[in-house]
Amino acid sequence: MLYIIGLGLGDEKDITLRGLEAVKKCENVYIEAYTSLLSFGISSDGLSNLEKLYGKPVIVADREMVEEKADSMLSQARDSDVAFLVVGDPFGATTHTDLVVRAKEIGVEVKVVHNASVMNAIGVCGLQLYRYGETISIPFFTETWRPDSFYEKIKRNRDLDIKVKEPSLESLCRGKKIYEPPRFMSIGTAIEQLLEVEQKCGQSAYSEDTLCVGFARLGSEDQIIVSGTMKKLQTVDFGDPLHCLAIVGETHPVEAEMLQFYAVNE
Amino acid sequence: MLYIIGLGLGDEKDITLRGLEAVKKCENVYIEAYTSLLSFGISSDGLSNLEKLYGKPVIVADREMVEEKADSMLSQARDSDVAFLVVGDPFGATTHTDLVVRAKEIGVEVKVVHNASVMNAIGVCGLQLYRYGETISIPFFTETWRPDSFYEKIKRNRDLDIKVKEPSLESLCRGKKIYEPPRFMSIGTAIEQLLEVEQKCGQSAYSEDTLCVGFARLGSEDQIIVSGTMKKLQTVDFGDPLHCLAIVGETHPVEAEMLQFYAVNE
Repeated sequence: MLYIIGLGLGDEKDITLRGLEAVKKCENVYIEAYTSLLSFGISSDGLSNLEKLYGKPVIVADREMVEEKADSMLSQARDSDVAFLVVGDPFGATTHTDLVVRAKEIGVEVKVVHNASVMNAIGVCGLQLYRYGETISIPFFTETWRPDSFYEKIKRNRDLDIKVKEPSLESLCRGKKIYEPPRFMSIGTAIEQLLEVEQKCGQSAYSEDTLCVGFARLGSEDQIIVSGTMKKLQTVDFGDPLHCLAIVGETHPVEAEMLQFYAVNE
Repeated sequence: MLYIIGLGLGDEKDITLRGLEAVKKCENVYIEAYTSLLSFGISSDGLSNLEKLYGKPVIVADREMVEEKADSMLSQARDSDVAFLVVGDPFGATTHTDLVVRAKEIGVEVKVVHNASVMNAIGVCGLQLYRYGETISIPFFTETWRPDSFYEKIKRNRDLDIKVKEPSLESLCRGKKIYEPPRFMSIGTAIEQLLEVEQKCGQSAYSEDTLCVGFARLGSEDQIIVSGTMKKLQTVDFGDPLHCLAIVGETHPVEAEMLQFYAVNE
């Protein structure tokens, strides 16, 4: 059996009782290292917090391992219980669909233990989850690569008067085996790039006066949530990753009232 | 302190360690009774599963209590720790923003413990969460009230080629104090109503041949996920609530492959 277990957003205490029970009976425990593991204390002192809680070693599976060595993990899962831990929810901001497909193809049973993801926890700012439009991912611009395909999506969402979530994840390298050290998109950089693209495309999808909500380390003890115009949010120090940004559409009175509590301090 | 704690989607074991820790130190524990508590064993044998786990009584707060007696709960929270438990995530399919606004207005501190919600757990079917459009809620039709305002939203989403989630929740009573016993919208009834509205509006937003995914009891041990056309899903017995339905747009190859595993058995 392969257990794919969401760890939630904060630290080792955000696992569910069901998830912890599954980890405890697994012979091998892997953790996906794609996304931020900082708050789980993994980069600083090994995996100690998780390993202490689980009472067993945890193997960090980097991108290459998940993509190329999934077969060996899956063949272990054929004869014993294997846990694959994922920050957030297994099917949240990144997808593990491919792993599930491969497991099912070779007849390995898969159980998913869900948890909070940035995709639903973002509701804490008071903007109704029902009314969000499609989510956009903003890559880091380079000297020669400044894609603006996300602009059309934002424009469409803005025209429909719904909100756009923009999880600002690390830039993804494609087609090469040497991975850059992970870089995390900050709200400041995201807004800078958004405004550059608006200036280039010029369809008034948004402006520096557009109301947004910035989130850092959502679901952690030290999370920051601030609402304000793009211009104002650029002056806020959101600190460590992960950051994400919601562009606000028309608001319901209760939504507006809630955003007031998060308004940028002037 | 008011703790608003998500219980997740399955049963009492889906609470997080952080959530359980908070419940244990709270003097008063309330649970919201709006949504389905069936799987938590609440309607059948009181609150025994939850109360056994927590080691203390749990007060079921029905709709009237949450709306009208929130003040007394909030004044308790001023002087002691109070837990308010919510199935799923506190800001998932229903919103508790109003409660938070009232708490903040009278200076009561609020802490939110996130958990899985149908809004992210639906990703388990393999359709990328990023690409979902706005969510639609379908009310029960009556003899004289057959609203079709959701049709425009589905049409828009279909035109944009994104998916529509349709959590089929109980019909909401507005403006009266005598509440109907909760009724839960089934996938069969939802599709029947969708097709009726398509026939009336006639803009080919979808048809009985449109690919969908039906979900029942998402996140529970006995969850059911089936993909197929609307026509085929109408023949499936999804069993007990809660049900929800995704209308599928254009799929990526991995998404399509994953949906195959859930294809309706013929």
